[in-house]
Amino acid sequence: MKSRDKAVNQMIKAAGEREVETVWDRYQTQQPQCGFGELGVCCRNCTQGPCRINPYGDGPDHGVCGANADTIVARNLVRAIAAGAAAHSGHARHLAHALKKGLAGKAPAYGLKDEAKLRALAARVGLDPELPAEELVNKFMDMALEQFAEGEGPLKWAQSFLTGGCGETFERLGTMPTGIDNTIVEMLHRTHLGVDADPVNLLLAGVSCAIADYAGSHLATDLADIMFGTPGPVFSQANMGVMKEKSVNIALHGHNPVLSDIIVQEAREMEEEARGAGAEGINLMGVCCTGNEILMRHGVPALTHSISQEMPMLTGALDAMVVDYQCVYPSLAGVAECTGTKLITTMDMAKISGAVHLGMHEENAAEKAREIISVAIEQFRARQGRPVNIPSVSSKVVAGFSVEAIVQALSKLDAADPLKPVIDSLAAGSLQGVVLLAGCNNVKVPQDDSFLVIARELAARDVLLLATGCGAGAYARHGYLTPEATLEYAGPGLKAVLTAIGEANGLGGPLPLVLHMGSCVDNSRAVDLAVAVADKLGVDLNKLPVVASAPEFKTEKAVSIGTYAMAIGLPVHLGVVPPVLGSRLVTSVLTEGVKDLFGGYFIVETDPYKAAGAIFAAIQERRSGLGLPTREWE
Amino acid sequence: MKSRDKAVNQMIKAAGEREVETVWDRYQTQQPQCGFGELGVCCRNCTQGPCRINPYGDGPDHGVCGANADTIVARNLVRAIAAGAAAHSGHARHLAHALKKGLAGKAPAYGLKDEAKLRALAARVGLDPELPAEELVNKFMDMALEQFAEGEGPLKWAQSFLTGGCGETFERLGTMPTGIDNTIVEMLHRTHLGVDADPVNLLLAGVSCAIADYAGSHLATDLADIMFGTPGPVFSQANMGVMKEKSVNIALHGHNPVLSDIIVQEAREMEEEARGAGAEGINLMGVCCTGNEILMRHGVPALTHSISQEMPMLTGALDAMVVDYQCVYPSLAGVAECTGTKLITTMDMAKISGAVHLGMHEENAAEKAREIISVAIEQFRARQGRPVNIPSVSSKVVAGFSVEAIVQALSKLDAADPLKPVIDSLAAGSLQGVVLLAGCNNVKVPQDDSFLVIARELAARDVLLLATGCGAGAYARHGYLTPEATLEYAGPGLKAVLTAIGEANGLGGPLPLVLHMGSCVDNSRAVDLAVAVADKLGVDLNKLPVVASAPEFKTEKAVSIGTYAMAIGLPVHLGVVPPVLGSRLVTSVLTEGVKDLFGGYFIVETDPYKAAGAIFAAIQERRSGLGLPTREWE
Ligand code: SF4
Ligand code: SF4
Ligand code: FES
Ligand code: FES
Ligand SMILES: [Fe+2]
Ligand SMILES: [Fe+2]
Repeated sequence: MKSRDKAVNQMIKAAGEREVETVWDRYQTQQPQCGFGELGVCCRNCTQGPCRINPYGDGPDHGVCGANADTIVARNLVRAIAAGAAAHSGHARHLAHALKKGLAGKAPAYGLKDEAKLRALAARVGLDPELPAEELVNKFMDMALEQFAEGEGPLKWAQSFLTGGCGETFERLGTMPTGIDNTIVEMLHRTHLGVDADPVNLLLAGVSCAIADYAGSHLATDLADIMFGTPGPVFSQANMGVMKEKSVNIALHGHNPVLSDIIVQEAREMEEEARGAGAEGINLMGVCCTGNEILMRHGVPALTHSISQEMPMLTGALDAMVVDYQCVYPSLAGVAECTGTKLITTMDMAKISGAVHLGMHEENAAEKAREIISVAIEQFRARQGRPVNIPSVSSKVVAGFSVEAIVQALSKLDAADPLKPVIDSLAAGSLQGVVLLAGCNNVKVPQDDSFLVIARELAARDVLLLATGCGAGAYARHGYLTPEATLEYAGPGLKAVLTAIGEANGLGGPLPLVLHMGSCVDNSRAVDLAVAVADKLGVDLNKLPVVASAPEFKTEKAVSIGTYAMAIGLPVHLGVVPPVLGSRLVTSVLTEGVKDLFGGYFIVETDPYKAAGAIFAAIQERRSGLGLPTREWE
Repeated sequence: MKSRDKAVNQMIKAAGEREVETVWDRYQTQQPQCGFGELGVCCRNCTQGPCRINPYGDGPDHGVCGANADTIVARNLVRAIAAGAAAHSGHARHLAHALKKGLAGKAPAYGLKDEAKLRALAARVGLDPELPAEELVNKFMDMALEQFAEGEGPLKWAQSFLTGGCGETFERLGTMPTGIDNTIVEMLHRTHLGVDADPVNLLLAGVSCAIADYAGSHLATDLADIMFGTPGPVFSQANMGVMKEKSVNIALHGHNPVLSDIIVQEAREMEEEARGAGAEGINLMGVCCTGNEILMRHGVPALTHSISQEMPMLTGALDAMVVDYQCVYPSLAGVAECTGTKLITTMDMAKISGAVHLGMHEENAAEKAREIISVAIEQFRARQGRPVNIPSVSSKVVAGFSVEAIVQALSKLDAADPLKPVIDSLAAGSLQGVVLLAGCNNVKVPQDDSFLVIARELAARDVLLLATGCGAGAYARHGYLTPEATLEYAGPGLKAVLTAIGEANGLGGPLPLVLHMGSCVDNSRAVDLAVAVADKLGVDLNKLPVVASAPEFKTEKAVSIGTYAMAIGLPVHLGVVPPVLGSRLVTSVLTEGVKDLFGGYFIVETDPYKAAGAIFAAIQERRSGLGLPTREWE
């Protein structure tokens, strides 16, 4: 089985018929994959290599320089964390530049949209939230940009949004970053030939880098909210059935809303032009996390996610795919050529040979957005008369669960103390715990399968489910972001809680089974929620019955997110084996050793049923630690 | 043949007898090395991999995500450049922190030592060089630290020290960095799954990172000079014969003088303590670039370099090896255990399992230096009665050729216009050109062999030779840094020039055959010299008969240095094949395409005789471009 998604399977068939190569074909041709690389014991950090360690002991046990498996595995892992942190913080930096230029009158597309969020954030980072908006936003932006450079003390964005206990732990262990960029850069220095060879020292530096990733992610979320609005509950649709044969179909793919949000705005103005070309309108749809951003803020339907990103082109109805960066498969150029889709790259730092490049800059965002839409309209014209094959598969979606939206919904139950109902339910056991399902799809796992199994198993046992990124996308495409799914899959306690909230908010039924909190950088939203609960209970995050799970992860960003989730104190399930098994030491530090240091730890389990059991057990352990009633897995 | 160095060969024998594993043994056990890795076509940037491309066309031609060989090779290469830049700039940052704290009265070991150099640098970066010293050094340090953070315009340290033409080229091609850290971090972002897939775009970003490396290197040199003094001509010795059985033998290894310079100072105060332990004194010696730093400034003898770093322990007479970071083999811990040497790590970011860690901080540098020396004295005591096996191999060394020292020497020929004699000789053809020999040793090349062959071949043909890093170390150990070598190997034109300078400076003979300009960061000194010549001639660097060569390179730093040397306009010879051959496109861009963009380009040639010929041909091409008389290779 390649995918659990019916629409995807239909398109895989179409790809086979048209002899278009897809990610699954390439995965086949890559077999067998290199076992050294999979175990993390291959080093190419200098030209004396590649060096590889024989993990079974009957071959080389040291690289040419003398690095052993522990050093090599740790170095590879922490470089991945650094790359993840670079990606998330790069996304934040890009937003910061845009808003900064917007405020200076140099980028008219950008400005302060959500003043309430700005004031709330300002208070957290120690600015006077009562300042006039213009002064405040400028001060806030200066502080935001300072996060990247090396400072004297703890990184503000890490310290201000986590619990005091986290900050103390990080300071004590020397893992509190002093700036985002310098922390990432030092990681590269450390992993150069002949620098840090102590695996534990390397892993601690990796944690520091992951905390920088967290800070960058939080900042990305914060900036997107103040620039484009904080999400609130929104109704939409997901999966390839959202394509419309007679409309100009445009998919927005990547991660950063810096251009896609503007495209959403500009598309509204260009409906007329589309109709002039014979279309019924412009049909924007999202892919991956750019999709999540515009779904959360504007209800733009979610087309598909992660490993199935090539599939929408195979409908023959996709006029343009507009990509920014991160997780955008270079293969799209080849597929687009076969299907006539215009693949449009928009970031100068992320080009693809064979794509049309329309480079956006902050100054010309609206103009570029219109140019891009015009290209799509032209392509719509060009495809007339050609058959399309749109799977009639789509699901209803309720999304938009920012922390603000969740608190707002909860306040209908208890206006004075909105978190109280959740905390009371956790205490009583009608809610057993909270699990955040995050991360990508991975070609090594049947698409969505692990996400779906884990959600069903845990929901039935009264675990509250949050989701972000392509995980949230999986749930969207399978109808799990609906009240109906709650009725179908939730255990009695969870159902009661979700129904109480839903009804208090006039929905006439429960909240969705899984609460969609946004994109990958929005994992910071889930952390915010956990911090609010922890602070209210007066315990630290590493005591809460809260677990993170990345059942089908693939990216370096995911490795970085998983590491910060561990560092702030959460058990973190990974459903794909990370490349660390070549070092018993590194493996045991990550799954055991870190528990004593941070409270969080990794659980690696590829079987989704067993994974659900392990996650549930971790929740029970936490409940028992808090003196709360526990339950058997049954 | 493992090494051209007799002392090293003697110790390899000793290692064999004592069954101590060395770098050459590990290289054997690593055979065969992975061909995919060697060609650069293996990607592990996400957990869908490892993916590998079959370079012969009868296997996978795309990774799982669709990245092809060009993208994968380019991504791997530019990540290496980023790591190199991180290392060099990290070294500079460390010095900046130390001096900054020193100036604030918090780190008594550090202060302004070379005011003249400060004033000269200040003038280059646009500060008023007439300001009072204290004010000036503080302003200078603020500016130095600003280099790391993202700025608005071109990176000051890249722009101020290169020719105007370089700056224009970099601006035009978008390769001028705006800050060191953000440029490195963006490289990691770009190379994340699904970001930049355009190989040329990636390579241009790699160039930007390499320019950041140059800026970081220059800054490292600048700071070391103002803190510890600008080197001037110095007489010393090299190779393992410099060890003294009856002294406390301490090797200082790594790259950063931040601690080693202090150890040199403190050792002078601790002679008494050493004698109290029965020693004749304290015998400090250098390894790799830390060795170069203290050789250049204090005449500390050079013990050995790069791949032979394990060897001095095998004498049984090395009491302590004190390491900071970069190019420090983790294997040293194992060898030290066999030989009784104390291996002391000193940087918290660079530990080695099995070593004694005495972490230095700016505040406690002198104290730590004394603690370290005391450990060595104790070890001296403990080794009494045990036999030693010190090779009686050593060479005379004349080093210390900073640009200031070279200009000073030349001014004895022409006080008003010191560069004139060199330029006139180049024009007349008595000097054919200038070659900078840089980089490491690499276990894949018989140690020093390529360095020596290339130097002899070029010197005989009147090419002026500069050297840095472990290249300079190779020449030091083989007696090439002496007037005698000039008499033996220099062609008539070169001999005349070096003799004229030497005699004008009262040496009674020529300058050494190879001018030792310092450590790897001091490649920036060689660039300064070339820039001075170019500015004087009113042509750009990419017109000069100046070539860089890294005949035996191995590190990511070397890849980064080679790339900036190419970008500023030099032909760059590599004597080890970089992992790029898996992409014909990347290979041809680096060896041809970049010529049109930057003027510089790469020459890959592993045979040192052929390499010398290719370098000489590149010089002739440049001479002919300038309308200067050319010569045949004969
Ligand atoms: S850094 Fe060490 S283990 Fe890695 S490739 Fe170089 S010699 Fe081999
Ligand atoms: S980034 Fe692409 S080529 Fe690299 S490992 Fe992942 S799927 Fe393979
Ligand atoms: S040997 Fe397979 S990844 Fe390096
Ligand atoms: S397959 Fe050999 S280095 Fe990856
Ligand atoms: Fe994402
Ligand atoms: Fe060096």
